[in-house]
Amino acid sequence: MRLIVQKFGGSSVANTERIFNVARIITDTYKTGNSVIAVVSAQGDTTDDLIEKAKEVNPNASKREMDALLSTGEQISAALLAMAIQSMGYPVISLNGHQCGFHTDSNYSKARIKRIDTERLEKELDSKRIVIVTGFQGMNRFDDITTLGRGGSDTSAVAIAAAMKADLCQIYTDVDGVYTADPRLVPSAQKLDEISFDEMLELASCGAQVLHNRSVEMAKKYNVKLEVCSSLERVPGTKVKEVTKMEKLLIKGVAKDDDVVRIAVIGLPDKPGIAFKIFSLLAAKKINVDIILQSIGRDGTKDISFTVPTDSCDTALELLKAEQNLLRAHSIEVDTDVTKVSIVGAGMQSNPGVAAKMFEALYEANINIQMISTSEIKISVLISKDLGVKAMNALSEAFIK
Amino acid sequence: MRLIVQKFGGSSVANTERIFNVARIITDTYKTGNSVIAVVSAQGDTTDDLIEKAKEVNPNASKREMDALLSTGEQISAALLAMAIQSMGYPVISLNGHQCGFHTDSNYSKARIKRIDTERLEKELDSKRIVIVTGFQGMNRFDDITTLGRGGSDTSAVAIAAAMKADLCQIYTDVDGVYTADPRLVPSAQKLDEISFDEMLELASCGAQVLHNRSVEMAKKYNVKLEVCSSLERVPGTKVKEVTKMEKLLIKGVAKDDDVVRIAVIGLPDKPGIAFKIFSLLAAKKINVDIILQSIGRDGTKDISFTVPTDSCDTALELLKAEQNLLRAHSIEVDTDVTKVSIVGAGMQSNPGVAAKMFEALYEANINIQMISTSEIKISVLISKDLGVKAMNALSEAFIK
Repeated sequence: MRLIVQKFGGSSVANTERIFNVARIITDTYKTGNSVIAVVSAQGDTTDDLIEKAKEVNPNASKREMDALLSTGEQISAALLAMAIQSMGYPVISLNGHQCGFHTDSNYSKARIKRIDTERLEKELDSKRIVIVTGFQGMNRFDDITTLGRGGSDTSAVAIAAAMKADLCQIYTDVDGVYTADPRLVPSAQKLDEISFDEMLELASCGAQVLHNRSVEMAKKYNVKLEVCSSLERVPGTKVKEVTKMEKLLIKGVAKDDDVVRIAVIGLPDKPGIAFKIFSLLAAKKINVDIILQSIGRDGTKDISFTVPTDSCDTALELLKAEQNLLRAHSIEVDTDVTKVSIVGAGMQSNPGVAAKMFEALYEANINIQMISTSEIKISVLISKDLGVKAMNALSEAFIK
Repeated sequence: MRLIVQKFGGSSVANTERIFNVARIITDTYKTGNSVIAVVSAQGDTTDDLIEKAKEVNPNASKREMDALLSTGEQISAALLAMAIQSMGYPVISLNGHQCGFHTDSNYSKARIKRIDTERLEKELDSKRIVIVTGFQGMNRFDDITTLGRGGSDTSAVAIAAAMKADLCQIYTDVDGVYTADPRLVPSAQKLDEISFDEMLELASCGAQVLHNRSVEMAKKYNVKLEVCSSLERVPGTKVKEVTKMEKLLIKGVAKDDDVVRIAVIGLPDKPGIAFKIFSLLAAKKINVDIILQSIGRDGTKDISFTVPTDSCDTALELLKAEQNLLRAHSIEVDTDVTKVSIVGAGMQSNPGVAAKMFEALYEANINIQMISTSEIKISVLISKDLGVKAMNALSEAFIK
C-alpha cells in the first residue's frame, strides 16, 4: 500500500463546490488502495480577511498573536474538508498543527520546522482513516501556535511526506503543472513533464509561484518525490525529482519576480570589509539578499547595490541608515520600480552561448539591463518593472518556442 | 492582589469598537492592581456563520469535526482582544483551550469539564500578563478539541475561577444585571442587587438567558463569587452568591423558556415499570426531561406527557417510535406550540398562597395551563406559545410590581 501526501491550496478549497472536488480527488486516491494524508491551506481569502481584521485592531500586533489568529483559517478548511469526505461515506479525521505533532522553532510568522512526531498520524492511518492536516502551522516548545510564512502549506506537505516516508507528495494547484513561463503572461510557454529539484529551485526563487523554494529545498534534502498537478483537471502534472531524463529543451523556464527592490549604498570608502559589514548587518535580521553589484563610484569611492524582497525593504533601509555614518556612506538609495527576470536550465553553464543569446533577445526587445546575476543553472537580470512581461515573452520566443 | 475572572460574550466583542470597549474594562481592572483572566466567546455571529458553512458541506457532520470547526471562533476573538490590549501598552497573551490546560471528556459538542491544569495560567499571571482565554472549548485525552455546548463560555469562566481560586468571576453581558423578568418583554421587571445560587439556577433553567445553569451550578459547587454586569454601562451589576440578604420580594423572577416541546405517549398499558422504561430510554441518550405528567387514558390505559428541549425532540421521537411496539403505546404525539413560564423565589414552598395567586393571575389573563411543575423555589406552567409574553407580564404585575 502506498502513502500519498496531497496538498491543496486556498483556491482549491475556496467554496463548497471546490471542497467536494478536492474530496473526490482524495477519495479516488484512497479507494484505489492508497493511504492518504491531505494538507490544506485556508479557504480563498480567509487569511487576508483575518489580516485585515487584525490591522483594524492593531497594525503592530505581536507575531505570536497574529499566528494564533491566522492558524484558524486552516483549521476551518481542514474541518470542512473532513466533513465533505464524511458525507461521501469515507473514514476521515482532521488534525491541526498541534495534534499532528508538527514542532517548529519560535520564530513566529516564519517558523522553521524542527521535527514531526508521527505517532498520531501513524495511528490514524493504521485505523484506515484519511487524514486531513492543517498546512502552514505548527507549535513551538511552549505549546504556542506558529506559522511557517509564505509557501507554508507546501512546506508542511513536503515535511510530512518526508517524516512519514511517503511514496509521493502531490501539490495540487490551479495550474496543471510547471510551465517554462507563467502561461497567463507568456503565450508561448510550454508545460514540462519533468523538472529536477535544482531547476525547480531556481525557477521558484526566480518568482515562479507554482512551488515555494522552501518546499523544494526540503523535498531535495529528503528526496521526496514531488508532483505538481491541477485540482481542476485530471491530467498528468509535472514530476519534480532528483535527476530528469534528457530533454531537448536546454532552458526549462522563464520566470519573473516583481517582489523585489534594489537598494544602493553610494559613495563607500574603497577598503576591505565594507561589503562584509553591510551584508552581515542584513543577515543578522534574516534579510535575504539576492543580486549584488559592486561598482566604482566617484572620487575613489565605491557603490554597492543589491536586491531584497519587497517586504524586507523597510527593515533593510532602517538598518543601513542607522549605520550610515559608521559605514561612511554618502547616501542610500532605493528603487522599487524593478523586476527580476530569469531563465533556468541545467547545463546552461557549459553552454557559453546562452547568456549572449539572452542579452541579445533583450537588446532586440529594447530592454535595458540594470543588474545581472548567474548561477550554474540560471541567469537573472534586473530590469524596469513595466518591461517584465515583454522580457518574458522575448526570452520564451528566443529559447523555448 | 486580587484575581478577577471576567467573561465577555459574543456581542461584547462583535466589532473593533466593542473589542476596545472590552479591552478598557480589562485594563481598568488590571491597572488598579488586580490580576485578570478574561474569557471570551466568538465574535457576534461567527459561530452561526461557521455552522452555516458546515451545513452547506455536510448537515450530518461528526460532532468532533464540528467542534474543531467551531473552536476557531473563540481563537479569533481571543487573539484580536489580545492585540487590542497590546496596542494600549499592556502585557497580554491569548491562550486556547489546549494551551490553558482545559481538560474535558470526549462528549463532543457538549463536553463536561474534567480538570484544568493551571500551570500555564499561573505562569502567565506570575509574569504580570493579562491572560485572554478562549471560552467554550477544551480538549479531551486524545488531544482533540471539544466544545462545552450552550452557555459554554460562562461555564469556562466559572471553571477557571474555581480552579484558580479567583476572588470574583464577572459575567459581562449586554444587560446590566439579573432582572425579575426579561425587561424587553416585561416592562414592570426590576433589577436585582443580589440573588442566591439556587434562585439563579431556577431562573436559568426556566429560560432566563442571563446565565447558563451549568455555570451557576458550578459556581455554587465551588462557591465562586459571581457578578453579572453590563459591558456597555459601568453600573453595579447583580451579585450571585450562596446566601442573600432578606429582601422584600418573595418572587425573584419570572422566566419564559420557548425552547421546549411536549411529547405525549398515548395509550400505554396501566402497569408498573412503563414510566421507568420510557425515561431510561431517554436518559441513555442524555435527553433532559423536564415537566412530566401522567394521566388516565381511555379503556384502562394511561398517557405519559413530558417536555424536552427542542433540539432533543427528533432524537426522543426516534427512540420512542423504535420502541413503540415494545412499550405497547397506542400513539406518540408531539406539540411544538408550547412555552414554559415560571416564577422563582426562595421561601415559596412555605407560602401556600403563591401557587394559587399564580394560577389566578393566569386565569384572569385568560391563559389555559397545560402542565404544572413545582420545586422548592419555583412553579412552572406549560402554556400555548403565543401567550408567553402575556403570561410573563400578568405574573410580573401580580408578584413584582
